[in-house]
Amino acid sequence: MPVNIIPPLSEELLPIRGLSLGIAAAGIKKTNCNDLLLMVLDEGSRVAGLFTQNRFCAAPVIVAKEHLSGLNSSVRALVINTGNANAGTGQQGIDSARSTCSAVAGLLGCDADQVLPFSTGVIMEQLPLEKVIAGLPTAISNLKSDNWFDAAGSIMTTDIVPKAVSRQIRIKGSMVTITGIAKGSGMIRPNMATMLGYVATDASISQALLQQILRHSADLSFNRITVDGDTSTNDAFILITTGRAGHDEIVDLNSEDFRSLQDAVTEVSVHLAQAIVRDGEGATKFITVQVDGGVDQDECAKVAYAIAHSPLVKTAFFASDPNLGRILAAIGYAGINDLDVNQIKLYLDEVLVAENGGRAGSYLEADGQRVMNQDEITVRVVLNRGDSSVTVWTCDFSYDYVKINASYRS
Amino acid sequence: MPVNIIPPLSEELLPIRGLSLGIAAAGIKKTNCNDLLLMVLDEGSRVAGLFTQNRFCAAPVIVAKEHLSGLNSSVRALVINTGNANAGTGQQGIDSARSTCSAVAGLLGCDADQVLPFSTGVIMEQLPLEKVIAGLPTAISNLKSDNWFDAAGSIMTTDIVPKAVSRQIRIKGSMVTITGIAKGSGMIRPNMATMLGYVATDASISQALLQQILRHSADLSFNRITVDGDTSTNDAFILITTGRAGHDEIVDLNSEDFRSLQDAVTEVSVHLAQAIVRDGEGATKFITVQVDGGVDQDECAKVAYAIAHSPLVKTAFFASDPNLGRILAAIGYAGINDLDVNQIKLYLDEVLVAENGGRAGSYLEADGQRVMNQDEITVRVVLNRGDSSVTVWTCDFSYDYVKINASYRS
Repeated sequence: MPVNIIPPLSEELLPIRGLSLGIAAAGIKKTNCNDLLLMVLDEGSRVAGLFTQNRFCAAPVIVAKEHLSGLNSSVRALVINTGNANAGTGQQGIDSARSTCSAVAGLLGCDADQVLPFSTGVIMEQLPLEKVIAGLPTAISNLKSDNWFDAAGSIMTTDIVPKAVSRQIRIKGSMVTITGIAKGSGMIRPNMATMLGYVATDASISQALLQQILRHSADLSFNRITVDGDTSTNDAFILITTGRAGHDEIVDLNSEDFRSLQDAVTEVSVHLAQAIVRDGEGATKFITVQVDGGVDQDECAKVAYAIAHSPLVKTAFFASDPNLGRILAAIGYAGINDLDVNQIKLYLDEVLVAENGGRAGSYLEADGQRVMNQDEITVRVVLNRGDSSVTVWTCDFSYDYVKINASYRS
Repeated sequence: MPVNIIPPLSEELLPIRGLSLGIAAAGIKKTNCNDLLLMVLDEGSRVAGLFTQNRFCAAPVIVAKEHLSGLNSSVRALVINTGNANAGTGQQGIDSARSTCSAVAGLLGCDADQVLPFSTGVIMEQLPLEKVIAGLPTAISNLKSDNWFDAAGSIMTTDIVPKAVSRQIRIKGSMVTITGIAKGSGMIRPNMATMLGYVATDASISQALLQQILRHSADLSFNRITVDGDTSTNDAFILITTGRAGHDEIVDLNSEDFRSLQDAVTEVSVHLAQAIVRDGEGATKFITVQVDGGVDQDECAKVAYAIAHSPLVKTAFFASDPNLGRILAAIGYAGINDLDVNQIKLYLDEVLVAENGGRAGSYLEADGQRVMNQDEITVRVVLNRGDSSVTVWTCDFSYDYVKINASYRS
């Protein structure tokens, strides 16, 4: 079961002026199961996106990037299907993604390149295009602005819990709302893993600053989580502004308004990213890995991910076994060639476990065991060679991870 | 259960002239279980070693490297304990490794720096030095040259099957024997993972050429296997020559004798390395990942290891599920930035699975399923951008991997 994650209540999820959501059960995944989501944006909305760095990126990723980069007019719709990733599908897959956009455009009365396509699900099988297209009229017929909860549910694959959250802040006297949804629970890794994240706000902000907020919030949220180290073909993180909150457009990077909005979007993104880890496939524990005292962020991240990806460390967490030498081993192979292991301190929550190249004199196995028994644990490594820090979130590695991934298609 | 691995018969393992083996149950691991191995070498023997690149390398690794690099006279003994890795043990651990060497030297009448120490087992607990030292007289009292089978058993940890093999070749008319033993079944990864490998021969060869053979054979064997991607603190691969076969010393890198010996040592090393994978923790399948057509070996290795390390790919093999898009995804995130996915071909044994960026027109799921049902499978990726190839061996990822590693210390 997911770790300490409470599904959002429908009424906690706040509408974004200028954005409506339509949902359909198009039969792509299975019968009678919502698997198609349409987001329709008012004219004048702005969209920024980050996509997977996997070279085998999916057809919809190729088309969405193309539409975003070539835009002469604003994005008017996003169309998201689950049940099929349309990845590893060659030219036919790209044609299917384009045809999906054209079909949406035809129904909404906009151009095909104003539509961004997204898919998630099984790889290397052709998208059942006719089912997607046949589902669109239903999605359009139920477009509403207050159904974010159902929208979050419609993009789930192996997720157990829908992931969604809202925040409100004041900008120049106007109430600004930020609402986000995300899916993903396996194939999670830095650089955007199979996860789809959509954060929308009615704030008004320039395209350049929107892009800046997207990058900043991704770096502190979706790019700081890992479940199994696999990077997906389909990841996308999309930030949408409709500009309908009523305040003057934010154009100054150094303004307090910019920072407020950036902080709120980051908070929403961190909430969603952590929810993905808490709902990690088979997760029984939520692990925060914090690496302090590095020369730069890059080496802190290397150490953090070496720990967070190690199957040996993750199975020890699953077993609540304070076999903490495995963490030292992971630090040792993280790739810092001039690391002096005698300078390192390792903490489990507040318990000092190792220093001077070995077990700390004060360390008692009973203290380590007490922390390992918890379902939320912080591993802190102090490298003592600089001032940089990086925090990464991950989960343990359980029987159920194997079970879920061994039987994914059956 | 291990995949297609037949334990060697004791009589198949051939003595090496000038090398004797002593074994003891020193009570380091548990009672009445062999956990201490002493290898005693005749004077004039030569030893070359490769060690873990983990920065948190164990105390015996530090001491063994020091003794090997500072040698004025030849190595006379190797002392190997299981049950405790003496890693993450700080200065006290180094002192324990040195004391072990001194104790061996005192009993054999040589210098402490002519003794190389090795340990494997739990990390971050101090070596029970008094037990190791107390076990040495027993090991010395049963020194023999024909007990390689028991020696292979004495260095096992989570291994199910002892790993050992012998080969014989003729050099300059003399019969030359090569016998090797290895242990390791988890924490296996390129750059020497927890695995200990000892290959000995009675051939006569210069120190420089011995080093060359060690590097060559490691690159094609122990550095080409992976079980879980974790690199251990204690790995070592040691090549020993006693020079007692009676032929003239091999001193020419371009001689046929050199190549014969190098090939035979490599064959022994590959056998042992593959045995480690076949006995991989929880392994039910033996997977060969062959990457052809790369620009260089480095990029071939990146792709091979991305596939071999992917938990999603490995759980699909465990399930015999031809969910082969996961392999495409791993190729895509392997880190080749200018990869043209449309050029790639993916084969499962002889079945062409993908080309032109997607599923091959001729591919039938039934063919993929047939291969996935086998317990030995070759994944072949053709990158079509150069002439380099790399082959890596790995295993699947099963419930039992989690079980073994979640309960390792209990």
